[in-house]
Amino acid sequence: MKVGILGYGNLGRGVEAAVRKNEDMELAAVYTRRDPATLTIKTEGVAVKSTVDLDTGKEDIDVLIICGGSATDLPEMTPKYAAMYNVIDSFDTHARIPEHFANVDKAAQAAGKVGIISCGWDPGMFSISRAYASAVLPDGQAYTFWGKGVSQGHSDAVRRIKGVKDCRQYTIPVPEALDKVRNGENPELTTREKHTRECFVVAEEGADLARIENEIKTMPNYFSDYDTTVHFIDEAEMKKNHSGLPHGGSVIYSGESSDGVKHVIEYSLTLDSNPEFTGSVLVAYARAAARLNAEGVKGAKTVFDIAPSYLNLMSGEEMRAHLL
Amino acid sequence: MKVGILGYGNLGRGVEAAVRKNEDMELAAVYTRRDPATLTIKTEGVAVKSTVDLDTGKEDIDVLIICGGSATDLPEMTPKYAAMYNVIDSFDTHARIPEHFANVDKAAQAAGKVGIISCGWDPGMFSISRAYASAVLPDGQAYTFWGKGVSQGHSDAVRRIKGVKDCRQYTIPVPEALDKVRNGENPELTTREKHTRECFVVAEEGADLARIENEIKTMPNYFSDYDTTVHFIDEAEMKKNHSGLPHGGSVIYSGESSDGVKHVIEYSLTLDSNPEFTGSVLVAYARAAARLNAEGVKGAKTVFDIAPSYLNLMSGEEMRAHLL
Repeated sequence: MKVGILGYGNLGRGVEAAVRKNEDMELAAVYTRRDPATLTIKTEGVAVKSTVDLDTGKEDIDVLIICGGSATDLPEMTPKYAAMYNVIDSFDTHARIPEHFANVDKAAQAAGKVGIISCGWDPGMFSISRAYASAVLPDGQAYTFWGKGVSQGHSDAVRRIKGVKDCRQYTIPVPEALDKVRNGENPELTTREKHTRECFVVAEEGADLARIENEIKTMPNYFSDYDTTVHFIDEAEMKKNHSGLPHGGSVIYSGESSDGVKHVIEYSLTLDSNPEFTGSVLVAYARAAARLNAEGVKGAKTVFDIAPSYLNLMSGEEMRAHLL
Repeated sequence: MKVGILGYGNLGRGVEAAVRKNEDMELAAVYTRRDPATLTIKTEGVAVKSTVDLDTGKEDIDVLIICGGSATDLPEMTPKYAAMYNVIDSFDTHARIPEHFANVDKAAQAAGKVGIISCGWDPGMFSISRAYASAVLPDGQAYTFWGKGVSQGHSDAVRRIKGVKDCRQYTIPVPEALDKVRNGENPELTTREKHTRECFVVAEEGADLARIENEIKTMPNYFSDYDTTVHFIDEAEMKKNHSGLPHGGSVIYSGESSDGVKHVIEYSLTLDSNPEFTGSVLVAYARAAARLNAEGVKGAKTVFDIAPSYLNLMSGEEMRAHLL
């Protein structure tokens, strides 16, 4: 299976790592909008190419994994390339999923290709967990907790504050809230009751730390609805203790099968590297995209539309023997 | 969707409860091998019928949920009725799954029906969890822990000992083993290191308790490979504290996306009632069986072959809006 990667940021590198772990996969090329000569990739012997090549629609790849941002890249890129190749992305702007799905579906249907959108861990594996749980126990409620882990969006927001050189923001579930949900109490939880936020900030010399702390804690949308802790640290400590991108979280579903008979279903992830795990999910679904298309399937799909057997390296017989 | 239930033991009653929680489902009839006049079911206005009626192949049901035992009932019943109806079972004799799958497939293919086998929580939801995790992180290892929960097979085994009136056997994961696996240590664990067993036994008056305890602890296959604790209690305590059938467990998968970059995926169930939860899974997959067959699909299937969207009451649009 020949895989192309479009975009070589954290996620593109995560996909590259995942491809190496899958023996049926071969990285065909990495595509970039930059000058390919300026980019060195980790996998030896694999070409770095320009999106100009990709735009011909003639690249010899079974599936293109699009590693762009949800704000502006993916809404444009995924439909564009779904008109030429089987594609997959990790689009996560929730409110715009219907529109994105429709655009990718239109392009993929016309081209006879498969386009899988919104694939990763949330949306992705967490969505699957919510779907199975709510199907099995329709009378129930899903709770999603994120962390402990680094939120890149929140870290970036703090970096934009005057006097801030660097920041790493951790999202942390509130232990008491987790306990209540795990106990099947079906609590009503405010935003503040579900998660806290912790910021490690490197400030510029002479910056007004009190002002920075206040600007963080009162920032609308990002922090004002949360209890936030701010720690000022130096660059050496940032590099030593906060250079990774760990993440994770839990989907906890609590429901009843009859009056008073409760069940709790929990799906949890503890991830050393958010982009490498997201990349691993994308690669498993890239396999599904190619397999589905080989069977004549076309159009936009999400994780809900794809049976587990399409993702796995094993045959149906092997899966029944070893995993069932 | 009209559902028939074959067999009205613990599992059949669990399915009956689950049907009531699904607004698109209607219990059409309960079928029994006994004299239907001797059986009273919980749902009012629903017929109890003989398997003689079922055997005509002319019952007006969209899917038959077969609630029999794996040892002798299901190997015979599921292929038999797959030749007449869409069927689903919870067959769990692991070594015989390939044979059972082949038999059901042959009958269902010939009849143009769908037969879903080995559906419940293990095999079933746990199998799905192993399949997704191993697809996403092929370089990894799955661990399955059961409990704390009542093992009916082990309880029955103790009841067969001379001098035992009743027994409830709990399977309990060893906390240290769980911790090691959750930490991503990928330990090699013996049977004894993974689970302990705890028996609550009501003995007949004057029975030799030391002999009973010894017979339990040394019983091959069931107990000899485990550390087992035996408590002798009276019937009142059995009824008060051990009348339920709680169960649950965890599939914990630990894998790497690149050298030294670890991820832990955990899927856990805490179930008030093993048969009601198993029944709930069967009902969700019964929906899938009928939907697949309506699309022209036929033959034997397992949970691996069925996309999450087929299980859920919601439409694709609703799922993308609310669950993705």
